[in-house]
Amino acid sequence: MSFTDRLGTAAARIEAHLAGVLEGKPRVPVVEAMAYAARGGKRLRGFLVLESAALHGIAPVAALPVASSVEALHAYSLVHDDLPCMDDDALRRGQPTVHVKWDEATGVLAGDALQTLAFELLADPVIGPADRRIALVASLARASGAEGMVLGQALDIAAETAGRPLTLDEITALQAGKTGALIRHSAEAGALIAGADPAALSAYAGAMGLAFQIADDILDVTGDAAKAGKALRKDAEAGKATFVSLLGLEGARRRAADLVEEACAALAPYGAAAESLREAARFTISRES
Amino acid sequence: MSFTDRLGTAAARIEAHLAGVLEGKPRVPVVEAMAYAARGGKRLRGFLVLESAALHGIAPVAALPVASSVEALHAYSLVHDDLPCMDDDALRRGQPTVHVKWDEATGVLAGDALQTLAFELLADPVIGPADRRIALVASLARASGAEGMVLGQALDIAAETAGRPLTLDEITALQAGKTGALIRHSAEAGALIAGADPAALSAYAGAMGLAFQIADDILDVTGDAAKAGKALRKDAEAGKATFVSLLGLEGARRRAADLVEEACAALAPYGAAAESLREAARFTISRES
Repeated sequence: MSFTDRLGTAAARIEAHLAGVLEGKPRVPVVEAMAYAARGGKRLRGFLVLESAALHGIAPVAALPVASSVEALHAYSLVHDDLPCMDDDALRRGQPTVHVKWDEATGVLAGDALQTLAFELLADPVIGPADRRIALVASLARASGAEGMVLGQALDIAAETAGRPLTLDEITALQAGKTGALIRHSAEAGALIAGADPAALSAYAGAMGLAFQIADDILDVTGDAAKAGKALRKDAEAGKATFVSLLGLEGARRRAADLVEEACAALAPYGAAAESLREAARFTISRES
Repeated sequence: MSFTDRLGTAAARIEAHLAGVLEGKPRVPVVEAMAYAARGGKRLRGFLVLESAALHGIAPVAALPVASSVEALHAYSLVHDDLPCMDDDALRRGQPTVHVKWDEATGVLAGDALQTLAFELLADPVIGPADRRIALVASLARASGAEGMVLGQALDIAAETAGRPLTLDEITALQAGKTGALIRHSAEAGALIAGADPAALSAYAGAMGLAFQIADDILDVTGDAAKAGKALRKDAEAGKATFVSLLGLEGARRRAADLVEEACAALAPYGAAAESLREAARFTISRES
């Protein structure tokens, strides 16, 4: 199966799992908004969970709640990031954002409940022994909270009022939280489900997460808004420093390619079995959305 | 020790635990806002955790992260409920709300990170075996998400645009989510930490949670805003149905007193050892804030 087919199959499985879980919730607008926000997307983070789990001999059925958990957490972060008081975006994955389609209160609440759902999914006994599930809870909390995504988003907002563009080190730190933390958790998850050492997956994810964000900055400059499904050129218009403004377009492309090589090399302990994860790393810098 | 002294001691312990955990986080404004939002309050929910744990022979040191977890979750719900797009409150516990003291983005993010913290705290090995900690994660998720607090808050917001006041059944369902769910989780937590049956504590908490909310509605009418530390008479001014508007002041007082009796009776299996929890139930309808 080609990489794109594998990614599509994983996305469909995760989509179905999340839809099934949400069908069991009360039929109220906030749950509709959760389902709406959790639909679509590439499911790259969930794919990393399924593939890293497969590498450790974990069956897809055990990894699926974990993959759905990272996608629920990702969806929560997007709904809150899109709010008027944050990035104020009207379009996401080609559709109106939650606060535009419903209202701000529903955006806040649907995001809140999607974060809760991410932790709830990790309690599923099908994942395996309780100590592994608790390790996943601790790892997700690190990725999500004031040391991870919330820190990254807070630094991003602070940068807008800093009165000067960020340096390369500052942007790297910001993105390590904002995008990198959940990518790292997702890639490590397979090892955590299996009770194995996540060191190699962690090194892979660190390099790949940064490549992913550089690619995002490149897409913001060169991309097609219709394909991306969201507003582009926002950073340049806002005069924000990005990897492209700091490294130049060619410099950013080179740096991203080097990081993908680094990510692939980190998977050496897994040999050929990790080819799908290597393709995922290459995909991060070739994607159009 | 008197009930008030026990409650005060519990509050101080929880306060110190939360402050210690937050001191380990990055020194950024959003973490300051988390610490600010997590300060103060009666800590009644945390007290329920510590007392229900003591009933089951659990040492305070093992119950403290669980008590701190429910208080972090409670603080998150207050910060988000106070946002302009929700209840739009400027005062909480006698102090400016987070979005007033900082800004809306910080309010959203600090609330988000406090929810994460609530789950993170449950991963602490000091609580006990991993299967007990996972049971707590599942229980907290039920209390917090689209079947619990988020559902209650969504129903509350929907009621404002319903064009008619809610019925008694509707208000009871709304409050079961908004206030009741976390009180139930808090009271059951002691049994969950011990791996025991939470049925008696659950019945206690169901009655007490409703009494608590009726008392809140009474305080909204008869209370002193300075003692309450927040704006009062908001419900009456908004023409919202409350237990007082539906049952009358005396009827509401009688119903709350009956529920407290019911809560106390549910603790019969624990005998005299549960006296402190009975006092907590009586306290819910005698408090001034």
